[in-house]
This record gives sequence, structure tokens and C-alpha cells, in this order.
Amino acid sequence: MNYYAAIEAGGTKFNCALISQDKQIIKQTRIPTTIPEQTLDRVIEFFKELQKQYTISSLGLACFGPINLDSSSIQYGNITTTPKPGWADFPISRQLAKQLNLPVFFDSDVNGAILGEYLWGAAKHSKVAVYVTIGTGFGGGIIANGQILHGLHHPEMGHMLIPTTIEQGHCPFHGSCIEGLASGTSMAKIWQEPAEKLIDRHPAWQLQSEHIARFCYNLLVTLAPEKIILGGGVMQNPALLNMTIENVQKIMAGYLTLGKSMNEIIVEPGLAQLSGLFGALALAQGKGSHSIC
Amino acid sequence: MNYYAAIEAGGTKFNCALISQDKQIIKQTRIPTTIPEQTLDRVIEFFKELQKQYTISSLGLACFGPINLDSSSIQYGNITTTPKPGWADFPISRQLAKQLNLPVFFDSDVNGAILGEYLWGAAKHSKVAVYVTIGTGFGGGIIANGQILHGLHHPEMGHMLIPTTIEQGHCPFHGSCIEGLASGTSMAKIWQEPAEKLIDRHPAWQLQSEHIARFCYNLLVTLAPEKIILGGGVMQNPALLNMTIENVQKIMAGYLTLGKSMNEIIVEPGLAQLSGLFGALALAQGKGSHSIC
Repeated sequence: MNYYAAIEAGGTKFNCALISQDKQIIKQTRIPTTIPEQTLDRVIEFFKELQKQYTISSLGLACFGPINLDSSSIQYGNITTTPKPGWADFPISRQLAKQLNLPVFFDSDVNGAILGEYLWGAAKHSKVAVYVTIGTGFGGGIIANGQILHGLHHPEMGHMLIPTTIEQGHCPFHGSCIEGLASGTSMAKIWQEPAEKLIDRHPAWQLQSEHIARFCYNLLVTLAPEKIILGGGVMQNPALLNMTIENVQKIMAGYLTLGKSMNEIIVEPGLAQLSGLFGALALAQGKGSHSIC
Repeated sequence: MNYYAAIEAGGTKFNCALISQDKQIIKQTRIPTTIPEQTLDRVIEFFKELQKQYTISSLGLACFGPINLDSSSIQYGNITTTPKPGWADFPISRQLAKQLNLPVFFDSDVNGAILGEYLWGAAKHSKVAVYVTIGTGFGGGIIANGQILHGLHHPEMGHMLIPTTIEQGHCPFHGSCIEGLASGTSMAKIWQEPAEKLIDRHPAWQLQSEHIARFCYNLLVTLAPEKIILGGGVMQNPALLNMTIENVQKIMAGYLTLGKSMNEIIVEPGLAQLSGLFGALALAQGKGSHSIC
């Protein structure tokens, strides 16, 4: 039996696990994301302890970003322009490889999540599929023809511009991009109340579903994906997915006949909260393309 | 020497050519797009005459759309929901295959064009690239990891929603999508004057470059393509490309470091007016994926 180290590294917590090749989670822990040295120390301690008992083949890292995926760059595998204190330009992949003496396979958190969903979740057998997380931030990853899509960069689709009636969104770079309008952080700023405290009948949710619908519609006409998987904390609102689907149908106005109903296309994650962690497992198994040894 | 029949089928004209495997255009003609039977008769006559002299291996068709690419559908290879009189549900690929007794390889016009640009033009060696045509309509095709991107449908990115100050765009389905704002047809409706008659200093061009820039920016954050190739009649305005690039840079606001300057990414076609026709050649050579024999 092979064992893999999997890390879903988020801006709030590092979700770490030892997972066997038959996808059993042997041991799991969540470590708060503080400053890099402190966080990494605890991550390394967790896996070093496990290395006494298990031979770990490799480590998969699905990491918050932006992260450098340009193998010709000396910053390959580093977190780059994050505003998170201490983490900008932090060589996370190299540090983990060195200290755990393991090959590290890495990609962005959402690229990991779409890979997990493609292999074992809601995007199985899809030619084109998108995983979107709407939580503290707003981001997405794409699978196209069996491979994670990487161009000059990993997708940063949370910064897509959409029409809105909101006067001023909250992205420090672009104002009213979808992250500036519809991430949990932006919702809290717009409504002066954390998203999880907004009651179900609050008008925030109608507007939220319209914004997410415009974003999903734009993905549909650009990529015609078989699946758009909506995950993340904000999507936990029980009515939001269906309200979003209804609004996408209204915008589409019958233009494209996609051969599937919208609620077969726009769906919740097949792996529930584990898309990112299983994505990290898939990366560890060499099913992505970026590694530091 | 092998010879191929290539057709770039547009809503205004059918650009037809016999092309040799070494990419020499042996003979070329442009046939106006009228009603299907009349247009096809002339296309078939052109190639039948050539078949007396040349052994043609196959036909490549880069076709205006939407076009059915679902090989399990009985409408496979048909033009589908076009508003163009007589062309809706027209079995163009099957008709050509039957009457010319040739295998027909087909895809959308812009999918053809991006394939041509990927093999021989501005998108050579790109992992991800987009060809956009801005003319009578507004559309785009994507190459990802060496293959034309097909999900549930071919891309219909001309229907992407972007923020605008224009009160009412002219797409009959979506109002102010980018096609409803920035196609030649929509420009003419907004400014009550054909695009080619609008003088260079007309405020239409500034607004046009802002709209196209928002669209290009959305492609950049979604796909991070190495190239966005802007073709089509409206892009013939000599200042428009540079104005668009400047506006994309303003919107990006330094967020993504793409390792390339914006004018290396957003470019004119490498094949000038021939992206679609050479795309049809590439399709004929089996470098796409959809065929009717």
C-alpha cells in the first residue's frame, strides 16, 4: 500500500492528511494559517511524526495563491503576490520538499479541487469542467481534455468583471470584479454583517445569486463546460444554488441548447468538503503537472 | 502531392479554396451567402470542376454557427439556431459530403481560425490561446493543450456579459452582451452609422476599445492565454488594437504578473485574412476532431 501526504493550504487553515492509495484518510489535522514559519513548523511536525510509522511516497499541495507555476522561474512553487502578511514570495513548495525529504507536487487550491472532482467527484468524465470556490475569496480552476488548464498563469477567474448595480465593490485591484462583489469578505463589507449572519430572506442573497449567475453564465458561453461545481463557505446557504441556477436560465434566454438541464450542469461538489484534499492526493500521485523534488 | 478543399463559411460569404499540402492556394473563390441551396450549388460547382483536374483528399469546413458538434445527435454537423433565413437546422456538412463524395471535417469558423493560428500563425507553441473575430458578429475559439476546446458546445463567448455605460445593447437574446455592444452590427445601431464610416476621432472608438478590453481582460483572468488574437472587420480600425491593449493594462492594475507585456499577448492574426481558410485546411487534414464521411 502506498501512502501520500496531502495538504489543502488555505488562507485560513492548512488541511493536512495522510491518505492511502485506496483513498482512506489515515490521519487528518487542521492547522490555522498564521505566519509562514509557525504554520509550516506544525505541518512538518505532523507529517514527520507519521513518517516514523508510514513510508510516504510524495506530498501533494493544493495551495492558496497566486502561486508561481513557471518551471523556468527561480520562484517556481512560491506563493507570489498575496496580501497575506509574511506569505508573499514564500517558497512553500521548496520548504516542504526540503524538510520532509519528499517530492512535492503542487498547484493552486482550486486547480487541485477541480482535479479531485474530475477524478472522483461531480466532474467525472467531463471534457471541460470548472470548480469554483466562493468563501473568504473567490476563485476557480478548469479541467480541459483531462488536464488542468494552465496558460501563462493559473486561472484567477474571481477577478472577472460582470455587470452590477452595486456602486462600489471591494476588490483592492478591480473594485467590482466578482470577488469584489460576491466573496464572503465582500458580502460582509457590502451588508455590514458577516455572510453567515445574513438571514435567508435578506435581499443580499437575491443579489448574490444574480452576481454568481452572471459569472456562471459567462463561464458557460466561454467554455461550455459540462459541469460548473460551486463550493466554498458562502455556497452553504441552502437556497443559493437553486436561486443561482434560475438566474442563469433567465440570462441564457434559450440561446444555447446544451442538451442538459442547468441543474445537471451547475452543481455542488461531489466530494463535499474534500475536493481540495483529494485534489492534493491526486497531485501527490502525479496526476497534475508541477513538482519540486 | 495531396490537395484539400477548404471552406470558411461566413454569414456574408463562403470563402472557398483548393489548397495543396504545402499550403499553396491553387484556386480560390468567394461566393455570397444567400439561401442555402443556391449558395451550396455554387460551392459544389466550384469544387466539382476542380475534382476533374485534382484528386481532393477531403474537405475542411470552418462554419458560422451555432453548429452541432454532438456526434450522438442526428443533427451532427448541422447549423442550428441561426437567425439567418433558411439556414437554421441546415445539414451543411452532410450535404457537402454527399454531393462531393468527400469526407467532411468541420467545426465552428472561429474554432477553425484558432487552429490555423495555432499551427501556422500567431498562436504557435501556445498552451492556451484564443482567436476572436469582431465583425458582423462577435465570436471566439480556444486552443488548450494542443486541442480545440469543446465542452457541451463550441464557445459562444460573444455573448459574454461585461459592465457598460450603454443603456441598451443590441443582442436579441441578452441585450448588452459583448456582441450586443461591440459587433459591427451593434456599433452601427448604437451610432446610427456603419462602423467603417465612423471617423477615427469619433468617441465610438474609445468606448469600443473599453468594451473589447473588458472582454479581453475577462479572458485573461479566466484562461490566462498566451495569445488573444483579435481579427475581423471591426479590428481593421488602425488605432483600435493599441487602444484596447492600453485599456486592458488599466483594468489589470498590475494584479497578474504574466511574464509578458500585454502587446505580446493581445495581437493581430498571424495569418492576416487567412486564419479561417487555413483553419479549414487544418480541419481537412484531420487536425480537428469532428467529421462526417
